[in-house]
Amino acid sequence: MDPYMIQTNGNGNLASVLDVHVNIGGRSSVPGKMKSRKARWSVRPSDMSNKTFNPIRAIVDSMEVKPNPNKSMISLSIGDPTVFGNLPTDPEVTQAMKDALDSGKYNGYAPSTGYLTSREEIASYYHCPEAPLEAKDVILTSGCSQAIELCLAVLANPGQNILVPRPGFSLYKTLAESMGIEVKLYNLLPEKSWEIDLKQLESLIDEKTACLIVNNPSNPCGSVFRKSHLQKILAVAARQCVPILADEIYGDMVFSDCKYEPLATLSTNVPILACGGLAKRWLVPGWRMGWILIHDRRNIFGNEIRDGLVKLSQRILGPCTIVQGALKSILRRTPQEFYHNTLSFLKSNADLCYGALAAIPGLQPVRPSGAMYLMVGIEMEHFPDFENDVEFTERLVAEQSVQCLPATCFEYPNFFRVVITVPEVMMLEACSRIQEFCEQHYHCAEGSQEECDK
Amino acid sequence: MDPYMIQTNGNGNLASVLDVHVNIGGRSSVPGKMKSRKARWSVRPSDMSNKTFNPIRAIVDSMEVKPNPNKSMISLSIGDPTVFGNLPTDPEVTQAMKDALDSGKYNGYAPSTGYLTSREEIASYYHCPEAPLEAKDVILTSGCSQAIELCLAVLANPGQNILVPRPGFSLYKTLAESMGIEVKLYNLLPEKSWEIDLKQLESLIDEKTACLIVNNPSNPCGSVFRKSHLQKILAVAARQCVPILADEIYGDMVFSDCKYEPLATLSTNVPILACGGLAKRWLVPGWRMGWILIHDRRNIFGNEIRDGLVKLSQRILGPCTIVQGALKSILRRTPQEFYHNTLSFLKSNADLCYGALAAIPGLQPVRPSGAMYLMVGIEMEHFPDFENDVEFTERLVAEQSVQCLPATCFEYPNFFRVVITVPEVMMLEACSRIQEFCEQHYHCAEGSQEECDK
Ligand SMILES: Cc1ncc(COP(=O)(O)O)c(C=O)c1O
Ligand SMILES: Cc1ncc(COP(=O)(O)O)c(C=O)c1O
Repeated sequence: MDPYMIQTNGNGNLASVLDVHVNIGGRSSVPGKMKSRKARWSVRPSDMSNKTFNPIRAIVDSMEVKPNPNKSMISLSIGDPTVFGNLPTDPEVTQAMKDALDSGKYNGYAPSTGYLTSREEIASYYHCPEAPLEAKDVILTSGCSQAIELCLAVLANPGQNILVPRPGFSLYKTLAESMGIEVKLYNLLPEKSWEIDLKQLESLIDEKTACLIVNNPSNPCGSVFRKSHLQKILAVAARQCVPILADEIYGDMVFSDCKYEPLATLSTNVPILACGGLAKRWLVPGWRMGWILIHDRRNIFGNEIRDGLVKLSQRILGPCTIVQGALKSILRRTPQEFYHNTLSFLKSNADLCYGALAAIPGLQPVRPSGAMYLMVGIEMEHFPDFENDVEFTERLVAEQSVQCLPATCFEYPNFFRVVITVPEVMMLEACSRIQEFCEQHYHCAEGSQEECDK
Repeated sequence: MDPYMIQTNGNGNLASVLDVHVNIGGRSSVPGKMKSRKARWSVRPSDMSNKTFNPIRAIVDSMEVKPNPNKSMISLSIGDPTVFGNLPTDPEVTQAMKDALDSGKYNGYAPSTGYLTSREEIASYYHCPEAPLEAKDVILTSGCSQAIELCLAVLANPGQNILVPRPGFSLYKTLAESMGIEVKLYNLLPEKSWEIDLKQLESLIDEKTACLIVNNPSNPCGSVFRKSHLQKILAVAARQCVPILADEIYGDMVFSDCKYEPLATLSTNVPILACGGLAKRWLVPGWRMGWILIHDRRNIFGNEIRDGLVKLSQRILGPCTIVQGALKSILRRTPQEFYHNTLSFLKSNADLCYGALAAIPGLQPVRPSGAMYLMVGIEMEHFPDFENDVEFTERLVAEQSVQCLPATCFEYPNFFRVVITVPEVMMLEACSRIQEFCEQHYHCAEGSQEECDK
């Protein structure tokens, strides 16, 4: 084989190699002269990039179905509250950014963990007597995603494992597996408003368990844990001495009839890294402002973990300084009505959607209490036309131009997730199309004819 | 030993462990009941965070000297052109951000590689016939730092090695070592305007070499490679079949008497990932806008490396969408005078500084041609008061309140780096203080009395 053959994988597109040899100033470079190294092109992606697997992309991209051309597309699949324009951020938030720009003070490098003043603001905003915070307990990150990445990177070595909710946000697994960290899935129970199966959770813990991820309020469930349930989770962590990564990006986004409890306020001993950000509550996910709050009143993380986080933050530095400079005003000036209006809109849409879908034979929606999502069980035995949730949602696009994410994306087959940030008319239209779809495909399950006759 | 002893390292601050056991609803949880797992707190930072070592932080933080209280501090150590307020960004750049904010269009999630329109803008800005670019060849990142991180992460596996300039920007080593990638240092030759020692470079290459990092214009040298030298570097890469990571964050920042050649414009066969960003040329390093330009005309990277980069970009998503939205106007509307003024300021300061330091016995400045730095050799034999460059710069702070980075930070002892973005008066004042300092500490080297008598 020609040693200068270009190695390509897969697409077989072999490029010309005529000028792999370059002549400079007349001196022809003969490779053999230099080294015995076999010189041929072979550039392969690293194991890490090969292991970086985003199930949502993989599943959604492979679906490749065309929507019904006679119906306008309604996408209930993307967890981005800004796509429909009906949920703009507050003018104070935009103004805070302009002020930061005009000041000219926020163009340079900030410390890698963020400006001290910005960290002070976050600390005092989230400080409470049960879970005190100072600037040194805050690390600003490029979105909540980087917050999660840094927490996993500091807590776990390759070969260790982390405990991740099922159904759950797919990034946990994507990040962990790219770092060689094993993922163990603990179950959420739809019949118990998605509470954790604590026994099963505890049974997964072993000496290689580096941390427990608790996502509350939850994506994709829209569930909010009660205080007593959170205390039980903390009890497991305390008993097994497993630190917690609390993904609280939907913190405070709960409907009026229930209460959000930051996990760290309920524990004095379990070390907790709480991750949050501006993305959801302030409706600016693109701005990439996230944070880690270090709760460690027993000094179990100690300086080592803190220093580790600081060192990791120096790899690519923190979030955009303009957003950092705007944080103070964003936190202080955003009016309460803004938060209130977002939540009452979400609550009303959740009620609409839940009500409409609960009335559809074959579907089992689970009523959400917060965040921006609603999970719907599919009684697959009544839909024999479809293999699984992926095919169900695929055909829903093809026939009704309504896109929902199959919950296989969240390791939870036979469910789909509905995003409830769409304008009310679209929500209603989507629900009625889902109804039409289900009616067209509903079959009585074998041996349950009586049900169908009702 | 008490199994509930909290493991802490170093600071010995043992916290109380009284409520490690939590009682819920009267059920006392006895750990022994659950599992044989030894339940005690022991949370240690990962190997990766331990391996994340930032030499600048380590060296500078350990210096801990107090400046001379009788002289105001002049810091020539931070590569941040904004710290003195004398180099504001252009008003068009700020306006572009405000327009992006006002449009309300850039608050949501962008694709993980960046908005298509923003990538198109970058592609057409850097496109040229010799190195064509389309949107698909551009990945937007959170600063040039993340661009470098993604390139290394896609190209190299743990156990492989990369070739890094000495002296060179410390982040290459910090990132590589945190990922378990070995760093091999190739030499830059001060006597040849910091050209690469090509023979030594080529001798370092082996079958585990994943890429060659070429930083042009250079931090810390302020050097700019001539076209013929760049061609020779490309010839080595072509001969040895090693892809190149071209760190061109100081691209176009060269003084009027020399020309900047983007590396990719000089090669049709070597696959190149060129990294850049807004940080330096547009004087907004805090905004964290960087990019990767994929040059692969022979399809040697192929879809695999491209897909790998895309997958890695999905881990934490890209840069702030407001900056992405502003890119078009930033690239199109920033007036030429802005770039010109920055460069003539830098050139004039470089000349001042070079001239002043060249006249000081014992110092050997190397004249820069671009970027924002100047390297100064210390003839250590003439400064027996000091052990090395670290001590030299330490004493310079203590006695003259002038801070320069010891080039040990760049793996290059017996030099120090001067940042030339400071206002002219400070530049002059700093130089005269350095002169005073050197005069006070200069000793004739043994056996060279005649030199001293001059
Ligand atoms: C549960 C959860 N955590 C984290 C994130 C990531 O947030 P960010 O966009 O700030 O990176 C999301 C985004 O959808 C999420 O749903
Ligand atoms: C040579 C070089 N590359 C990359 C960077 C990082 O750039 P950014 O701030 O965009 O991450 C710097 C910053 O000083 C640099 O000097």
